[in-house]
Amino acid sequence: MTLERYAIGVDLGGTNLRIATYKEESTPNGMIADSIVLPTRVEDGPDAVADDMSGAIRKLLSKHGHGGNFAGLGIGTPGPLELPDGILRNPPNLPGFNGYNLRRAVELRVGVPAIIESDANLAALAEFRLGSGKTYGAQSLCMLTLGTGVGNGIILDGKVWNGHNGMGGEAGHNSVDPEGEPCPCGSRGCLELYASATGLKRMAKESRGSDANDSDESSILTARHIAESATAGDAAALAVFARVGTALGIGLGALVNTLNLPLYVIGGGVSAAWDLFAPQMTVELRMRSYVYRMNAPTEDDSRLRSPRKTHVVRAELGADAGLLGACLLPLMQGSSG
Amino acid sequence: MTLERYAIGVDLGGTNLRIATYKEESTPNGMIADSIVLPTRVEDGPDAVADDMSGAIRKLLSKHGHGGNFAGLGIGTPGPLELPDGILRNPPNLPGFNGYNLRRAVELRVGVPAIIESDANLAALAEFRLGSGKTYGAQSLCMLTLGTGVGNGIILDGKVWNGHNGMGGEAGHNSVDPEGEPCPCGSRGCLELYASATGLKRMAKESRGSDANDSDESSILTARHIAESATAGDAAALAVFARVGTALGIGLGALVNTLNLPLYVIGGGVSAAWDLFAPQMTVELRMRSYVYRMNAPTEDDSRLRSPRKTHVVRAELGADAGLLGACLLPLMQGSSG
Repeated sequence: MTLERYAIGVDLGGTNLRIATYKEESTPNGMIADSIVLPTRVEDGPDAVADDMSGAIRKLLSKHGHGGNFAGLGIGTPGPLELPDGILRNPPNLPGFNGYNLRRAVELRVGVPAIIESDANLAALAEFRLGSGKTYGAQSLCMLTLGTGVGNGIILDGKVWNGHNGMGGEAGHNSVDPEGEPCPCGSRGCLELYASATGLKRMAKESRGSDANDSDESSILTARHIAESATAGDAAALAVFARVGTALGIGLGALVNTLNLPLYVIGGGVSAAWDLFAPQMTVELRMRSYVYRMNAPTEDDSRLRSPRKTHVVRAELGADAGLLGACLLPLMQGSSG
Repeated sequence: MTLERYAIGVDLGGTNLRIATYKEESTPNGMIADSIVLPTRVEDGPDAVADDMSGAIRKLLSKHGHGGNFAGLGIGTPGPLELPDGILRNPPNLPGFNGYNLRRAVELRVGVPAIIESDANLAALAEFRLGSGKTYGAQSLCMLTLGTGVGNGIILDGKVWNGHNGMGGEAGHNSVDPEGEPCPCGSRGCLELYASATGLKRMAKESRGSDANDSDESSILTARHIAESATAGDAAALAVFARVGTALGIGLGALVNTLNLPLYVIGGGVSAAWDLFAPQMTVELRMRSYVYRMNAPTEDDSRLRSPRKTHVVRAELGADAGLLGACLLPLMQGSSG
């Protein structure tokens, strides 16, 4: 009897650090196990975070062993990330990490090789292998993760498309309104400014006008509250989600025209409001992309998941997608440490 | 002694039909031979065009032989093209060709298998193998061909990226001004409307105001005339090229953010005015794409063609790029008929 292979995955976020194991053969699809959640001690600097991460990894290694059954260690971090070195480049949610070689720091601490990848790419990989990619039998997909920002991951012919030095998949910063809002990235009107939770809050605040009490706004106007207002029929909240849909339609239109993939996946917290933004997104996408119009699925195509059509769907995996992707990376590469 | 391998390539344009041969080993780089140029008899329908094309192919086959030295036949057509079947889908410059299976029509007439591909993809392939791709040692590139429209071809890891049914590489119809000019494709503000010869003429006409004589405009205001005026210091013409640069910068910004390729190539007739639009294109691209800013080449990087940087360059091959690409396709696939 051979021991079942498992991998350890890490999801490094600006708030939490999550470390977990995944067994490809026996774990139910999309389920991680042994999850360790720690606060990300950003203020103590990258070495403190690497220490915490490595401690948790060692715990899981000593529980499960690191013999032939250990497939490897995958680490997901906010982008951008310079590959193949694994150096973080100015990650907005991890101040102080610019230029940090996280892969090397963890390898030195735990003594096993690590594979590093951006969290948005890992979410796309998990969705490809265990979520909608599997459902639709797609060989390629493009995923947008609507969270605090808009992450983007692209899978081409079964592999993460990293670009030539690891910075591919930043479509969240494509302009959907070139003369629009200034973005911290230096551009204007980035998709992220209209399709993220942060964007939702800003737009809702704008639509309530400047007479509203500012200190209340930040706490009350969460993305979920705006969605609840929209569901209850609030016109201003509905208009905000229409703007989300328009921005996504313009952004997706360019991605469909450029890449002509069979599957585009919308994930992240904001995607819970799918019913509120998807109708406008589809209208806009049809207008923006004749490539989409020529390949838009009919209701039958959608039901049958026709492989010749272009499907735009809600992600099947939830908040664990990035962590799952981190586990999948070593399992796919067959790395055994 | 083995006979040198040659391929036959076809470039089907809305005005001209060109058929030529190419020998990979002995022909000087980027040089076609035995070129046959015929008018494209669009008004007589697709079968007449297939007849003309096949007659010329047969002439070249009987001159050079179709034994082991014949590598195959490649055909370039305006997109979009449904692959792998090779069916033309509403090509704007070839009315009456919608749904026509050109590959099959030619194969039946000449009795050798043909490979079909969109002309913009073939220009990118030629530029990859024989032009700037070779100069920069790039494994991937994205090319924009600024002609009557804006064609787009993407080479990823050495191969044409067709997308899942042949319609990838239509970034000429990505919106760079979502509320801008209506485009015949159904969208608004497509890159093509600002960076093509047609767009140049329209913008120049707009800047001269409505008092100008319309019937004169069409003949006088060619792209070349506008470039001459700009070179002579005409403010309105310079402003038009600044708009070309802005549109290209926005369009390229999204392509760089999404794909992170080492090389972006600008070709086609309008690229002759490189010096007039490139400065503004670079300014805009730097603003639009932090991925570009992080990878922008210094003067030294450009001179040394640093493979870690993102280079945006003028195409090295001229108007024969599409025809050359049609010849390269069978030579690369090693098809022997």
